[in-house]
Amino acid sequence: MNTDLQDYSHKRLNILTGEWVLVSPHRAKRPWQGQNEAVSNEVRPSYDDSCYLCAGNTRINGEVNPKYENVYVFTNDFAALQTDSKSFSVNDGLLKAQSEQGICKVICFSPDHSKSLADMAPTEIEQVVLEWQNQYKELGDNDLINYVQIFENKGAVMGCSNPHPHGQIWSQTTLPNEVEKKDTQQRNYFKEHQKSILGTYLTQELEQQERIIFENDGFVVLIPFWAVWPFETMIVPKKHQTNISEMTGEDTLLFAEAISVITKAYDKLFNTSFPYSSGIHQAPTNGEDNSHWHWHMSFYPPLLRSATVKKFMVGYEMFGSPQRDITAESAVKMLRNLL
Amino acid sequence: MNTDLQDYSHKRLNILTGEWVLVSPHRAKRPWQGQNEAVSNEVRPSYDDSCYLCAGNTRINGEVNPKYENVYVFTNDFAALQTDSKSFSVNDGLLKAQSEQGICKVICFSPDHSKSLADMAPTEIEQVVLEWQNQYKELGDNDLINYVQIFENKGAVMGCSNPHPHGQIWSQTTLPNEVEKKDTQQRNYFKEHQKSILGTYLTQELEQQERIIFENDGFVVLIPFWAVWPFETMIVPKKHQTNISEMTGEDTLLFAEAISVITKAYDKLFNTSFPYSSGIHQAPTNGEDNSHWHWHMSFYPPLLRSATVKKFMVGYEMFGSPQRDITAESAVKMLRNLL
Ligand SMILES: O=P(O)(O)O[C@H]1O[C@H](CO)[C@@H](O)[C@H](O)[C@H]1O
Ligand SMILES: O=P(O)(O)O[C@H]1O[C@H](CO)[C@@H](O)[C@H](O)[C@H]1O
Repeated sequence: MNTDLQDYSHKRLNILTGEWVLVSPHRAKRPWQGQNEAVSNEVRPSYDDSCYLCAGNTRINGEVNPKYENVYVFTNDFAALQTDSKSFSVNDGLLKAQSEQGICKVICFSPDHSKSLADMAPTEIEQVVLEWQNQYKELGDNDLINYVQIFENKGAVMGCSNPHPHGQIWSQTTLPNEVEKKDTQQRNYFKEHQKSILGTYLTQELEQQERIIFENDGFVVLIPFWAVWPFETMIVPKKHQTNISEMTGEDTLLFAEAISVITKAYDKLFNTSFPYSSGIHQAPTNGEDNSHWHWHMSFYPPLLRSATVKKFMVGYEMFGSPQRDITAESAVKMLRNLL
Repeated sequence: MNTDLQDYSHKRLNILTGEWVLVSPHRAKRPWQGQNEAVSNEVRPSYDDSCYLCAGNTRINGEVNPKYENVYVFTNDFAALQTDSKSFSVNDGLLKAQSEQGICKVICFSPDHSKSLADMAPTEIEQVVLEWQNQYKELGDNDLINYVQIFENKGAVMGCSNPHPHGQIWSQTTLPNEVEKKDTQQRNYFKEHQKSILGTYLTQELEQQERIIFENDGFVVLIPFWAVWPFETMIVPKKHQTNISEMTGEDTLLFAEAISVITKAYDKLFNTSFPYSSGIHQAPTNGEDNSHWHWHMSFYPPLLRSATVKKFMVGYEMFGSPQRDITAESAVKMLRNLL
């Protein structure tokens, strides 16, 4: 390990997007006098009659949720993307716009209002994984849909407006910016080396063992060398799979175990229900050759020093590049100690 | 105006970065049950003896601020970038890193602790503009510095840890991600058309008058067609200037007036001291031909519906593309009414 990376300002390349993150290790010593987040240690009931995601309750549009027992999926009542939205384009001098169609769904992870993924058993999480696979296949089969974005916003600080355990799936006709970047980088590497860039990176990380948090037979949980958020992590399948539907029967439980391990470690880190946005990046469903893709799931948690102090991605980060203080290698040590 | 843009989901191209924003106009009707921000309507004193930015006070490193009367600049006591930081690079398989050197400064806009730019007279703001010019020139003359990022984080919700009116200047050896993108897009257009893309865009906006908030002899305040944040705005000089040092005597006061107008309108919008991150993107100081650059100042304010409800750029936005509900054209109308 190059110790300069722990001592001096530098930038690291994200091989999947081609963008850089600025790392300023010495800056972690800076005092904090800014905004503190509220911590909710409220214990939630297993059922809340005012929650529009609980089983049997009525949603804002009058629909009644079934008495579901594991996972429940429905179309978002305020979908940002719709299939019956008008097709049009604007090409007026330097004003360029294009209609976008899609389907937005909500997926309840459990009927139990009080839980989060961290509180669920791997076999329960596996039900969520199986449903993600179904959704990816079903949405991907729709001719209108060329990309399926699975994600979760957890915690009020991440814009989540309902604590009931749930995630979302936004699927659409064109590739979003971040997916476009990863598509290009992975394609270029694959063309040149006939193997996946993420798989090659994984081999290197497994040899070095410096940023690995956990591994089982199918998956590795690590902090990528180029991580932006203080405790950002990534779950990478050991097999070269382009999308989650390629997981076999054994893989799904191993993946569920990886999710369980990292979300439990997060909750222990600052002794709080750890907020984050997570998401799965995987091959588009555009019918093209996507063998350059190697799917992966990332967690972007905002907390920096405690349950109440988060990292602000503001001025310099918005106008320049993302910036972090604590290095990926220090963060790995903290998380590893909590397994 | 194409009314489809007000009714149906679409994406718009940011001509300066080459990236897209997803716009879902119908979604503005969605109810909000999520996190509310705290509003501070606290009236601050003109001088606070515990503030490390007030004139005459002692900073954390023991240095004493002078009794400054207008603007005061010093090197950040917890600088993310330093000039005496070690030079090194890592090129180890798929791990790529490069040391980064630079200078980070803090600029106090006024000795008056109680004020913000919105409360200052244009002639007072002009003092800030003149100092930005000095800093751009002085830092740019340093061989280590190839780019100067001027920005302000205003409000606790934007990670600002001290309400004393101040901004920052981070200058460094390489170009940050966002600047690199704008450099490429502007260069490509300039090569093909021998004129600046932003100047050409400005002409089109001035003809259409749909997204213009304010103009004077030197500057236009507008909401760009591709704005991401609900009330994002941009100040663009009418003359083709590559960087702020090219502003002449008259320009600086006209620019100060534009800043004054938009910050005052912001404060009126939700009847609160309006938080934002602002920043100036301008030509690098790398000694190359940068005639493709057209400098501009942008404001990225997080608030969406009121002083307490902000737009969260989370799951889909982090993994996919930025997304907005209210259109640029509706936001313009709201801000114009407040002038
Ligand atoms: O330098 P400050 O004001 O302490 O810190 C603030 O601005 C910096 C530059 O945008 C960010 O990196 C920090 O997260 C933010 O809290
Ligand atoms: O769809 P929700 O949960 O109401 O909304 C949340 O997630 C969306 C997708 O990341 C964001 O656009 C919203 O800003 C956020 O509040």
